Formats: sequence, C-alpha cells, structure tokens
Amino acid sequence: MINPTDLEAAFDRVTDFWSPKIIGQVNDHLLKVAKLKGEFVWHAHDTQDELFHVVKGALRIEFEDRAVDLKEGQFLTVPRGVRHNPVAEEECWVLLIEPASTLHTGDVETPISRSLDEQLS
Amino acid sequence: MINPTDLEAAFDRVTDFWSPKIIGQVNDHLLKVAKLKGEFVWHAHDTQDELFHVVKGALRIEFEDRAVDLKEGQFLTVPRGVRHNPVAEEECWVLLIEPASTLHTGDVETPISRSLDEQLS
Repeated sequence: MINPTDLEAAFDRVTDFWSPKIIGQVNDHLLKVAKLKGEFVWHAHDTQDELFHVVKGALRIEFEDRAVDLKEGQFLTVPRGVRHNPVAEEECWVLLIEPASTLHTGDVETPISRSLDEQLS
Repeated sequence: MINPTDLEAAFDRVTDFWSPKIIGQVNDHLLKVAKLKGEFVWHAHDTQDELFHVVKGALRIEFEDRAVDLKEGQFLTVPRGVRHNPVAEEECWVLLIEPASTLHTGDVETPISRSLDEQLS
C-alpha cells in the first residue's frame, strides 16, 4: 500500500522535545519530524549531510564561525562534518531529511540521544 | 556559505509546468520544486524511490491498480519500479525528493523530458 502522509498531522504524534519521529522514507533517506525548544548539543555527522526544514516557528543553527536564522518555510542543509547546534528560543517544528544511518546527536552520546528504534512512532 | 532557502519563494522561479527546478541537496538526494497542471506521462524509475510532497493544491497519482489523491500538505513515496502517472486537475505545486540520478520521466523519453542541467534554476 502506498498511502499519503499528512505533514502537520504527523506532528500531533510528537510529544517530547528533541525526540525525532520517522514519518517517511525515500531510498536510504528518512523523513523525520521533531519539536524543538531550547538548546540541543554541539555535534557533527562526519559522513552525512542533514537537512532542517522549519515547518512552524523559527530555528537558529549555530556554527562555529556564525549562526543562521531559519524562518518558517525555510530549509538549510548542514554539510557533513560541520559542527552545529540547533537553538529554538520558542517551540519550533522541523522536518529533518537525513540518511537512515545518521545519529541525531552525531558524534556525541548524550542523555537525549535516541536510537532509530526509539524514533519509530 | 550555508544559506537558508525559502520554499515558497523557490516556486517564483518556476515558470513552466512539468519542468522541475533543483533548490537543494542532502547527500545524493536533490530537492526540486515543480508546478504541475494536466497529465504527465506514465513512467517508472527502476531503481529509485521518488517522493512527492504537495505544497499547494492537490495531486492525483495514478498507479496501475488504483489512484491516490494527495491533498495540500501531504506527501507520498512512489517506490522504485512502480509505474505511475501524476495528474493535476488544477495547478499544483510539489516538492520532489529523489536521487540526483533520477530522470523525471523515468524510463520514458518525451518532449517534456528535462536533463539535470535544464533543472538548474
């Protein structure tokens, strides 16, 4: 069965901040939704780009040399190997696109790290 | 430079129907925007899934055994090898996610086929 997924409705199933849920797949890439608030953790993904698309709210992504502000409806690809830290002053809803093999906290293991199994909604 | 892309604004650069424009990349996958109206062409991509996300309007994707209606805000992945035909009764704006190697008309060469170079906006 090939069924549509409603992006907004997918966020209803997200109850915790910084805890991505897998909502779709295209080849080896996963689509995930996450609700963000506050500061995440500095990390990098050595071999994988990661795309952030802001569906609701606003997101700042800090890099080592500067920060980029993403408004609602904007997206940005963090290139592989680039250390970054997402910061959301207010609650922000993001769609993430990244390979199935990507760990959301990258090279950093933290109490908020979630395995892929834990990201199945 | 890592810069944000505004999804809605990206559609302003699309002037022709059925002529996707590349607006982003994450690893080997491209993000493309396209405006659709009318019927496309039956085709399949033998080795690549293709994701359709309806940003504005509505899209019907016909399969050999049934059709699926995508409303605004919904997405669907057409699995590799599955013959399909997108149909938009009214103008529809879609975000496509697919590997860089995917040809938008798949195994079918038509007058509306566009090379990757032609999809650079």
